[in-house]
Amino acid sequence: MPSSLHVIGHQQPDTDTICSALAYARLKQAQGVDATPARAGEVNPETQFVLDRWDTESPSLLDDAAGEQLILVDHNEYSQAVSGAHDATIVEVVDHHRIGDIETSDPIYFRNEPVGSTATILTQLYEEANKTIDAQTAGLLLSGLLSDTVVLRSPTTTDQDRSIADHLADIAGVDIEKYGKELLQQKSKIGEKSPREMVLSDFKEFEFESHQVGIGQVETVEPEVVLEQREAVLAAMDDVATERNYTVFLLLVTDLLKEESTALIAGTQIDTVEDGLDTTFTEQEAFLPGVMSRKKQVVPPLEDAFN
Amino acid sequence: MPSSLHVIGHQQPDTDTICSALAYARLKQAQGVDATPARAGEVNPETQFVLDRWDTESPSLLDDAAGEQLILVDHNEYSQAVSGAHDATIVEVVDHHRIGDIETSDPIYFRNEPVGSTATILTQLYEEANKTIDAQTAGLLLSGLLSDTVVLRSPTTTDQDRSIADHLADIAGVDIEKYGKELLQQKSKIGEKSPREMVLSDFKEFEFESHQVGIGQVETVEPEVVLEQREAVLAAMDDVATERNYTVFLLLVTDLLKEESTALIAGTQIDTVEDGLDTTFTEQEAFLPGVMSRKKQVVPPLEDAFN
Repeated sequence: MPSSLHVIGHQQPDTDTICSALAYARLKQAQGVDATPARAGEVNPETQFVLDRWDTESPSLLDDAAGEQLILVDHNEYSQAVSGAHDATIVEVVDHHRIGDIETSDPIYFRNEPVGSTATILTQLYEEANKTIDAQTAGLLLSGLLSDTVVLRSPTTTDQDRSIADHLADIAGVDIEKYGKELLQQKSKIGEKSPREMVLSDFKEFEFESHQVGIGQVETVEPEVVLEQREAVLAAMDDVATERNYTVFLLLVTDLLKEESTALIAGTQIDTVEDGLDTTFTEQEAFLPGVMSRKKQVVPPLEDAFN
Repeated sequence: MPSSLHVIGHQQPDTDTICSALAYARLKQAQGVDATPARAGEVNPETQFVLDRWDTESPSLLDDAAGEQLILVDHNEYSQAVSGAHDATIVEVVDHHRIGDIETSDPIYFRNEPVGSTATILTQLYEEANKTIDAQTAGLLLSGLLSDTVVLRSPTTTDQDRSIADHLADIAGVDIEKYGKELLQQKSKIGEKSPREMVLSDFKEFEFESHQVGIGQVETVEPEVVLEQREAVLAAMDDVATERNYTVFLLLVTDLLKEESTALIAGTQIDTVEDGLDTTFTEQEAFLPGVMSRKKQVVPPLEDAFN
């Protein structure tokens, strides 16, 4: 079978990852490149809401990327990529995270910007390519942008995100605050999940020196729904940490309205995490005032602490 | 001493690296960012010709980047970066090579494109930032572009390089072919060098798996000047390979007019290089028809062969 070109986001896909894969595959197609959107895992309820709202089919699941050609969106490290990525050819990267461990033999297009969402960068790529964005694509891109920036409230939000959100909302014909509230309500639908589903629903794995570290995040307007099940949640975290040989499993329970997080922790080397986050865990729990962004406020200090 | 922000290219700087550092520092300054151009080694004669021609001071030498903030241009791997780069903070990358081993804790601007020169990308960045390019800066950018693409003849040259070269030549007020010929003559001034200077004047180091591999290139219209000194050149290569513990030291002697290269080799694992380049070395020498680009035609197959 000849290899195909897939536009694909990270494992445990979120709305920015799925919408970015869809929107970038469309741009590539408009430029005459035969690219297909793909996903590396199950679509979460918020993303399903977005796909239904904008009448768009989910990208198809890619089980094994070995031998394929990949355009990575919204991630640039192998630990977060679709399985088989090590044996695939990475032909492009568009992302807004730290620079990870992707290396290539050939020069490729690699565009990473410190903005609030990958959708923000893709909107610029449409403009640079002089391709118009239709209302449906604008709706998808806006959803990725608003989801990743918690409706422009996250500290990762830049002026560029704000002005691009306005532009996309115009094309899509929605009101940012009103549509954003609908999205936030979807993010909060966590009460129906099992503790294991809860801790893994927005989950990323990092390699800090030789340590595997898992960091999950639950963004919600009702943190008490999670924290009331503390013991069951911690047991689920313990199970995952043991199965996957994690040095640390950290879960951020982020209150979207108060803009703060409660962290739960499992694993060993808790003191390293305490150093990194400048906090103290009492009974595996710590309060992190002002912390909303895993990427900007948690990953960099933890990486430093482990190094 | 507080850390400063330096825009800096690779070791053994060439014209694209020096001119890119100068032009990007100017763009940053025009955007209100206090960035200084820097270099990681001696300016070669071609680049000195360019600096004189466009009445521009050489960037200052940065001996040790530890503790500094760096914008890397024209490279994105530590083995090619200024010494101390591992202990510096990389805040941006603009490049046109394979993706290397730079990792960061924070999200940064990272722009790599598969085009003929870093100067090509920087010209676009000026346009995207809506900043005008003055004649002097256009002359520097054009020099980087023409030097890296061997006056648009290298197989790395894209349509984008050609159209941007036209645009820059207009602003700078020079004729591409005529100015290009002057540049090529500078590249060819190699007869005056010692064998050791010759093999190290345009030199890059790569890490393929656990192997340190050095690849030098002499681009010239008179390859016989180098090849007549074969034994002295091979002795210099042997010395360097031993001092620096290289598995392989490969030197490409590239005939700019015939668009072909003769490769000389020192070190061990010559069979791996033969596999990678699909050639046979006889008395440490092999003919490589059509090979002009280290980056595109030599590095990728060698990396594959060593992996």
